[in-house]
Amino acid sequence: MDIFDRLKAAAADDWRAYVDHDFVRQLGAGTLPEAAFRAYLVQDYLFLIQFARAYALAAYKSRSLADIRSAQEGLASVLHETELHVRLCARWGLSRADIEAAPEHQATVAYTRFVLDAGAAGDLMDLHVALAPCVVGYAEIGRALAPNGIEALGNHPYREWIGEYAGEGYQGVAANARRRLDDFAARAMTERRFTELAGLFGAASRLEADFWQMGLDSAGPA
Amino acid sequence: MDIFDRLKAAAADDWRAYVDHDFVRQLGAGTLPEAAFRAYLVQDYLFLIQFARAYALAAYKSRSLADIRSAQEGLASVLHETELHVRLCARWGLSRADIEAAPEHQATVAYTRFVLDAGAAGDLMDLHVALAPCVVGYAEIGRALAPNGIEALGNHPYREWIGEYAGEGYQGVAANARRRLDDFAARAMTERRFTELAGLFGAASRLEADFWQMGLDSAGPA
Amino acid sequence: MDIFDRLKAAAADDWRAYVDHDFVRQLGAGTLPEAAFRAYLVQDYLFLIQFARAYALAAYKSRSLADIRSAQEGLASVLHETELHVRLCARWGLSRADIEAAPEHQATVAYTRFVLDAGAAGDLMDLHVALAPCVVGYAEIGRALAPNGIEALGNHPYREWIGEYAGEGYQGVAANARRRLDDFAARAMTERRFTELAGLFGAASRLEADFWQMGLDSAGPA
Amino acid sequence: MDIFDRLKAAAADDWRAYVDHDFVRQLGAGTLPEAAFRAYLVQDYLFLIQFARAYALAAYKSRSLADIRSAQEGLASVLHETELHVRLCARWGLSRADIEAAPEHQATVAYTRFVLDAGAAGDLMDLHVALAPCVVGYAEIGRALAPNGIEALGNHPYREWIGEYAGEGYQGVAANARRRLDDFAARAMTERRFTELAGLFGAASRLEADFWQMGLDSAGPA
Repeated sequence: MDIFDRLKAAAADDWRAYVDHDFVRQLGAGTLPEAAFRAYLVQDYLFLIQFARAYALAAYKSRSLADIRSAQEGLASVLHETELHVRLCARWGLSRADIEAAPEHQATVAYTRFVLDAGAAGDLMDLHVALAPCVVGYAEIGRALAPNGIEALGNHPYREWIGEYAGEGYQGVAANARRRLDDFAARAMTERRFTELAGLFGAASRLEADFWQMGLDSAGPA
Repeated sequence: MDIFDRLKAAAADDWRAYVDHDFVRQLGAGTLPEAAFRAYLVQDYLFLIQFARAYALAAYKSRSLADIRSAQEGLASVLHETELHVRLCARWGLSRADIEAAPEHQATVAYTRFVLDAGAAGDLMDLHVALAPCVVGYAEIGRALAPNGIEALGNHPYREWIGEYAGEGYQGVAANARRRLDDFAARAMTERRFTELAGLFGAASRLEADFWQMGLDSAGPA
Repeated sequence: MDIFDRLKAAAADDWRAYVDHDFVRQLGAGTLPEAAFRAYLVQDYLFLIQFARAYALAAYKSRSLADIRSAQEGLASVLHETELHVRLCARWGLSRADIEAAPEHQATVAYTRFVLDAGAAGDLMDLHVALAPCVVGYAEIGRALAPNGIEALGNHPYREWIGEYAGEGYQGVAANARRRLDDFAARAMTERRFTELAGLFGAASRLEADFWQMGLDSAGPA
Repeated sequence: MDIFDRLKAAAADDWRAYVDHDFVRQLGAGTLPEAAFRAYLVQDYLFLIQFARAYALAAYKSRSLADIRSAQEGLASVLHETELHVRLCARWGLSRADIEAAPEHQATVAYTRFVLDAGAAGDLMDLHVALAPCVVGYAEIGRALAPNGIEALGNHPYREWIGEYAGEGYQGVAANARRRLDDFAARAMTERRFTELAGLFGAASRLEADFWQMGLDSAGPA
């Protein structure tokens, strides 16, 4: 059982409410209203800008070249992800100008600034634990929504999104993030510290669930 | 026209949606459901803890003893305000343990961490502009809800809350905050900078309106 | 053996070079050139401004009201100490304008910004360990220079300085700082973390020794 | 006259003491003792680790993707520069292990942490102004030491170092840094702000001169 599995177990209800959220189920079933998905996509782009800042914060808070380099790779990869996002948005009829002009939703502000503040006030492990529901959770959701592989998704309307997070590239990013948490824990985690981190992890998971809810709510009443 | 008035004018719709919010109107009319007020009070206590951190951030970011001292007074006064809050909560049947055990609502996380991040990423003026809708806005709301003075409120159910913010003490705090914005502007504000600051002010005002809405929503459907 | 004693033992040479520095010996013997003491006093005032910022940083990085309050008291007490400093300087013929116009010496910049950066990049324990050579070390030096009590110092030329740090007030501040380190350690210190903290403590002690050396060098060649 | 030239003019004495320092003159004349150069090289490597953190801080403090991207390129290029440094050190008989085991000198701590703190406490322009004596100054020094081009240096003992900073690649980096300062100034610089920034620039230049002096002092008395 690695640290990530311990955190999930300690915040089991918050975790389930996030990864089994209605938005995720409808997305998997292909029944998610397009309006909900588009609203989500736009906010997720704004979200990534702040996530790039979070990796930059990790590099700033690092003490060794190895840690700076690892954070710099995270930053470069989020910047790359924003480009994929622009292409994905384009297929849903959203121009870059549309996306960048959108105001941040409360749910976007809440999760992103919570992560940035947890990292600024705490140490590198706080920052990476606050990032984990996103980084590792998306890999778990991607795999769950493509249980028979990406090819088996056929003409699934959200095939491209699911494929991105179920794919080997992203699964590897998540596996690295889990290992990094174990490294931090080996270095500086006492049991009292674990309890604090589990609280942080639970709060971040709730904010992720709120982010899905924002997507659903944007589609208007059923 | 001081800087605060210019910011309000530049973000007029967001400002009105905040200071004229239904929560405020019902609070002024004395018709606000107790459940909504209690939910608000608890979250506002959690809010103040983060606001104390924002004043500490202002002291940390200061360059002169005079600026450090002024921020330190802000910090001390927020810490004092939390004590008043505990007493106010007690009269509404909420113990300190009740308050501190409550999880932060998304609306609380969003506004507080937005302010803290604006201050960490920007300069002292960004921080104080992000704080202004709260610091100065509450003074404006307090005065508007007690147009004939605090005594005239009689047995108003929310007399104590209104009295706190309509009172001379708090009005003085807000007047100082306005003057501080003018000092910052005299030192380092170009017109392009004003446009950015107005964006920040508008975003903070929207998050304040969301905070009222959270209070109303907590009372359940009408 | 508390954490502070463990840190001292782990960085024994650096610690001795700091608390037994020639500046300290000459100050204790009353033979320290006035020019060296005055140069030190001015830089120490500039040092305290940055130390006030370090306590503000501690308040900003705190998660609980109790931690914020404790840091706020540290901040208030450093601000108070700057006033005593101005009076001490006055007796040595230095006006407040003289002091505030002085440029920061390299030694002042090095130690103060090292502490601030250790705190910004690390967690609260990093910050307090980086502050400890100053906060606790001055209490140890004060007591060592007044082995028979402050009264026994008679007409010692540096009686006032020694008395300040040998006095009960300051000794209590240092005792609190030691206890705080123990609290942090109980919460979150593994042995690998101790090794890192001992490195930080040693580096801060060397920068303190450099600060004394700056005082001696300012008096010019013997 | 761009902002960089205005800053140089406002801090003319500090600037000259830095770019015309004896270390630079002896380096240019090829008479700099090898021991001084090696001591400098080791500290400059430790310096670059902190400079990488400074670019990460710039990315963290950015608000737009364009600013994050530009800071990320700066970070990537400093990380690349550390590799060149390891190769340069190897030619002078210094292994990577030698370099990384060296304790940071007071002069290294002073300049690097001063820059990081100026950036954390101030805004992006403070950070880039504090970096400018290094980033732009090295380009100016490189060009001054190779007035007839790199080829004309022949067998100059420090040809490789001079060539790096006189070369087109580095000259382009410095030209970009100057343009960035002009962009920041167009956005948010008042005349009072310029005065503050000139103070920051002067202090950073003095710390750079101290850094050269540290190199000279390491070679021992003449």
